Amino acid sequence: MQQNKPRIAVTMGDPAGVGPEVCLHLMAQQSIRTICDPIIFGDLAVLDAAAEKTGLANVKLSEVKNFEAISLADFEPGKVNSFTGHAGYTYVREAIDAALGGEIDGVATAPLNKEALAAAGIRFPGHTEIFAAKTGTEKYCMMQYSDIITCSFVTTHCGYIEVPLLMTIDRIEEVINLTRDAVKRIRAKEPKIVVLGLNPHSGENGLFGCKEEEERIIPAIERCREAGCDLEGPLPPDTAFLKWRLETTDAFICMYHDQGHIPVKALAFDKAVNTTLGLPFPRTSVDHGTALDIAWQGKANPSSLFEAVKLNAKLIGL
Amino acid sequence: MQQNKPRIAVTMGDPAGVGPEVCLHLMAQQSIRTICDPIIFGDLAVLDAAAEKTGLANVKLSEVKNFEAISLADFEPGKVNSFTGHAGYTYVREAIDAALGGEIDGVATAPLNKEALAAAGIRFPGHTEIFAAKTGTEKYCMMQYSDIITCSFVTTHCGYIEVPLLMTIDRIEEVINLTRDAVKRIRAKEPKIVVLGLNPHSGENGLFGCKEEEERIIPAIERCREAGCDLEGPLPPDTAFLKWRLETTDAFICMYHDQGHIPVKALAFDKAVNTTLGLPFPRTSVDHGTALDIAWQGKANPSSLFEAVKLNAKLIGL
Repeated sequence: MQQNKPRIAVTMGDPAGVGPEVCLHLMAQQSIRTICDPIIFGDLAVLDAAAEKTGLANVKLSEVKNFEAISLADFEPGKVNSFTGHAGYTYVREAIDAALGGEIDGVATAPLNKEALAAAGIRFPGHTEIFAAKTGTEKYCMMQYSDIITCSFVTTHCGYIEVPLLMTIDRIEEVINLTRDAVKRIRAKEPKIVVLGLNPHSGENGLFGCKEEEERIIPAIERCREAGCDLEGPLPPDTAFLKWRLETTDAFICMYHDQGHIPVKALAFDKAVNTTLGLPFPRTSVDHGTALDIAWQGKANPSSLFEAVKLNAKLIGL
Repeated sequence: MQQNKPRIAVTMGDPAGVGPEVCLHLMAQQSIRTICDPIIFGDLAVLDAAAEKTGLANVKLSEVKNFEAISLADFEPGKVNSFTGHAGYTYVREAIDAALGGEIDGVATAPLNKEALAAAGIRFPGHTEIFAAKTGTEKYCMMQYSDIITCSFVTTHCGYIEVPLLMTIDRIEEVINLTRDAVKRIRAKEPKIVVLGLNPHSGENGLFGCKEEEERIIPAIERCREAGCDLEGPLPPDTAFLKWRLETTDAFICMYHDQGHIPVKALAFDKAVNTTLGLPFPRTSVDHGTALDIAWQGKANPSSLFEAVKLNAKLIGL
């Protein structure tokens, strides 16, 4: 028997979405169990019903933390409502408590539904905000990880025009440090990190933009270099993702959502894992939504959840 | 003898850069001559010297419009100065005059050098501005074309923060129309065009940003649809460049430089041709600079110039 395998809570996601069936796929995957002990935080009755409907193998009672948060009579597959929103939220909240209490080592999340959360009166727009609030975390950032390309984000879900206001020296430094720590854990070496500029051609020495490179990005890079970080930048964003540079770079620090999400989706679609850095425990997530149009039909591709659990195990690093 | 082949001026670029040798490669390429008659606008003495230094085949006098704009004594390969800047500018100016006079049908440009232009006291930062000014063109836009991905730009070389100010309804409509006309000519059919949003997730129905999608992009799309344009959008920028959508889209309308240059460089590096739409004649360009570090060494890859000339011939469409 292997000792000290990481214990990973896998939240079942919104019961009406593809969460239950991708969890069934996961538990049937022997290769996952060699690297960790996954435990589904969900509802056994929902998983049983999803297994019957999709023809997938059922899971054992011992593999599920059963919350009975929803009854089968309260929802239809493919249709979210306040009950599914409440249930999905319950699994996440309980997983956070279990992680904070030391029962489990990390949390991988199947998708929630924004509308269902709102219908249930839950004020959080998504997972990241729930994790940050329930763990009291103030300094965190999103990272999209894959073997091909890994991007961390100084800003994410804000308007285009708000980005220059939000990218302070402190925030850029924070995201570099969070990324350095995480990627060092994943790759087991000091990572090579590239920081992107904000303006076209990274401002071309102040020719374009309001010197965001000179006044915000470069000072943050200098602070982090002094702390021993292996950094290059700020680089022109458009030539940062060429093949040779991808092969020699462990992570890119992006100033805004689409600066990193465009190349991640273009180059590593279906392979990237979303992770929230800075929490007291590793949290990873599938990169897809509840996909209500194909839910409970056995069509959902579970590879994103597999990758999320595998990355979680690396981040736990037992 | 094939009649009516397009006559394309190929400007030699800065003499100290890789321009002369990529022009030599071009003239040696028989496949290019089957689709057009290329004429180098440059200096025969420079081409002769570059041929001798690199071992490439020389060109015939009849294939060159010889301006004697620079003497070999005035520069060294790999080192630009006011003479090389002046000469490179001369070839372009003369090619524009020849095109406006009907002597040639289009212009493909080898690279100029910004520093050399400035040293020669020429106030234009690059080709595009020279072409616009010398042809009196006010409505023009940049398009990056390749078989894999084609992007046109509402804004290009301006600061990140200026983009929302510059993307007016009129400007977006103009770029859509210029792109539609050009791609129709290249693909010989009504093109399928995708317009991107500005904000993350294209604003998510006004959740992010200042309603740039609702107030600027959507009205422009509606105007163009009324004129018969086949348009989709505004789409979330990060999922616009997935494989299946690239395969079904003839051109993307991008709001800012890196929104389109990031995926073009990541997916079609070395294949994309830069073209200026809206001029009285087709103008295409290599996508690289003068590459002074490898100039006159026989190392320069001429494929970008080949693609620029081929696209020019398609745009002329004789």
